[in-house]
Amino acid sequence: MILVNGHPADTVDARDRGLAYGDGVFRTLRTQAGRPLWWRDHYAKLAADCAALMLACPDEAELHTEVCQVAEAGEGVVKIMLTRGAGARGYAPPQDQAAIRIVLSAPLPVYAQAGAPDAITARWCSLRLARQPRLAGIKHLNRLENVLARAEWSDPGIFEGLLCDDRGAVIGGVMSNLLIMKHGELFTPDLAECGVAGVARARLLRAAPRLGIPTHIGRLPPAAILAADEVMICNSVIGVRRVARLDDVTWPPAGWTAALNNALYENLD
Amino acid sequence: MILVNGHPADTVDARDRGLAYGDGVFRTLRTQAGRPLWWRDHYAKLAADCAALMLACPDEAELHTEVCQVAEAGEGVVKIMLTRGAGARGYAPPQDQAAIRIVLSAPLPVYAQAGAPDAITARWCSLRLARQPRLAGIKHLNRLENVLARAEWSDPGIFEGLLCDDRGAVIGGVMSNLLIMKHGELFTPDLAECGVAGVARARLLRAAPRLGIPTHIGRLPPAAILAADEVMICNSVIGVRRVARLDDVTWPPAGWTAALNNALYENLD
Repeated sequence: MILVNGHPADTVDARDRGLAYGDGVFRTLRTQAGRPLWWRDHYAKLAADCAALMLACPDEAELHTEVCQVAEAGEGVVKIMLTRGAGARGYAPPQDQAAIRIVLSAPLPVYAQAGAPDAITARWCSLRLARQPRLAGIKHLNRLENVLARAEWSDPGIFEGLLCDDRGAVIGGVMSNLLIMKHGELFTPDLAECGVAGVARARLLRAAPRLGIPTHIGRLPPAAILAADEVMICNSVIGVRRVARLDDVTWPPAGWTAALNNALYENLD
Repeated sequence: MILVNGHPADTVDARDRGLAYGDGVFRTLRTQAGRPLWWRDHYAKLAADCAALMLACPDEAELHTEVCQVAEAGEGVVKIMLTRGAGARGYAPPQDQAAIRIVLSAPLPVYAQAGAPDAITARWCSLRLARQPRLAGIKHLNRLENVLARAEWSDPGIFEGLLCDDRGAVIGGVMSNLLIMKHGELFTPDLAECGVAGVARARLLRAAPRLGIPTHIGRLPPAAILAADEVMICNSVIGVRRVARLDDVTWPPAGWTAALNNALYENLD
């Protein structure tokens, strides 16, 4: 089911700036029994991303209602796209224009359902992410780098691709954030210049200290990943997954993934 | 008027990857008496941009027919957007999927009509373009940098903003390519790492040698712009315009703009 500005619809205006320029932001969140998980985090991130693009964020209650309205009965996924709407031709963003709300649901992917393996296989992508501090961290609609990176493999046995920036710093997965454990401490890449700062990553950074795990955000070269005790990816749909293989390198379980995944689902408001 | 895959429509599928990811390319071209100007160049660029994104480019004759169908009777503008269409959720591009064709017309903007001043005022933008060789030169639908740069000013007296990359090389205008004349030679920024390589620029690079003007593509620091004999911008809608003022710097006419603008409209096939 799809709601556009609260009304059932399958289409959007062909002149929408979301289509013309990718002028908007999005969220992909998990739903359970018709309600979104981690709503407070998702809405806060949406509001922050809107602010970064000078886009008026919709009212929280209105958006929550729409998410519940489209959500599948059992478990599912809801995607929220907010765009700057249709405007005059040209890049200049129209002033004081309410964002267009596109809220759509999808079944929970098989790989995110209960019983899916907690360990995955990843690969290095050859595409290098460009560094743009003005857009870094934001889950905006300009995602061609992700599309090109994901097009680098078709082997269904490979779940995720890892990306570096043009200086060789590891940034994260095509559709996930990256975390590593080393000597009992959690490290995740700094996303000040590129990448998407996801809600699952933010929740893990809040949860880890409660588990007695110190956290570090910084520059991680590929060698740091290879030397990790445990490598993990996370996002709002899959939670935390252990990377068991990265191209030719394999890791046995070091025991952190389940604890961190459980912590992710605790009430962290 | 708007045609979507050849049929009159005002909307596109809300699940289109052009909206979700900016997964597509576009062209903005001028029409005269219901026919596109510089069609051969525009189609060749569209095909090259599609190839760079592994997108199947529509048939030339079919697209030409659609452009003529939507074009205004007198002078006008037609925008072509090609997207990878609606697909399964996720970044992986579907295989062997025909591109969605969105062809829409608009009146010729006042600033592009006969009698509009041939000289314009520009400013430097503070946003720095990210360098992404995989996307450089392509007129793709990921245009948030242009939107943010254009949002830096609202003074209607300023026609264009000039952008540098993160290393300080001048790349071009928000909606145009940049050219300068110095000692009778034409220089334009190298677009191997960012920017859009427009059709008007390509035509000028072909036309200039016929006027006896040597051409150079390379790195231009801001100082090279300031030291130019004449600074110009170009695109398919406005042709060539002289930059008379750039923030506090002004240039008197050096006499190159009209000749280059005329050359742009010659048959250069």
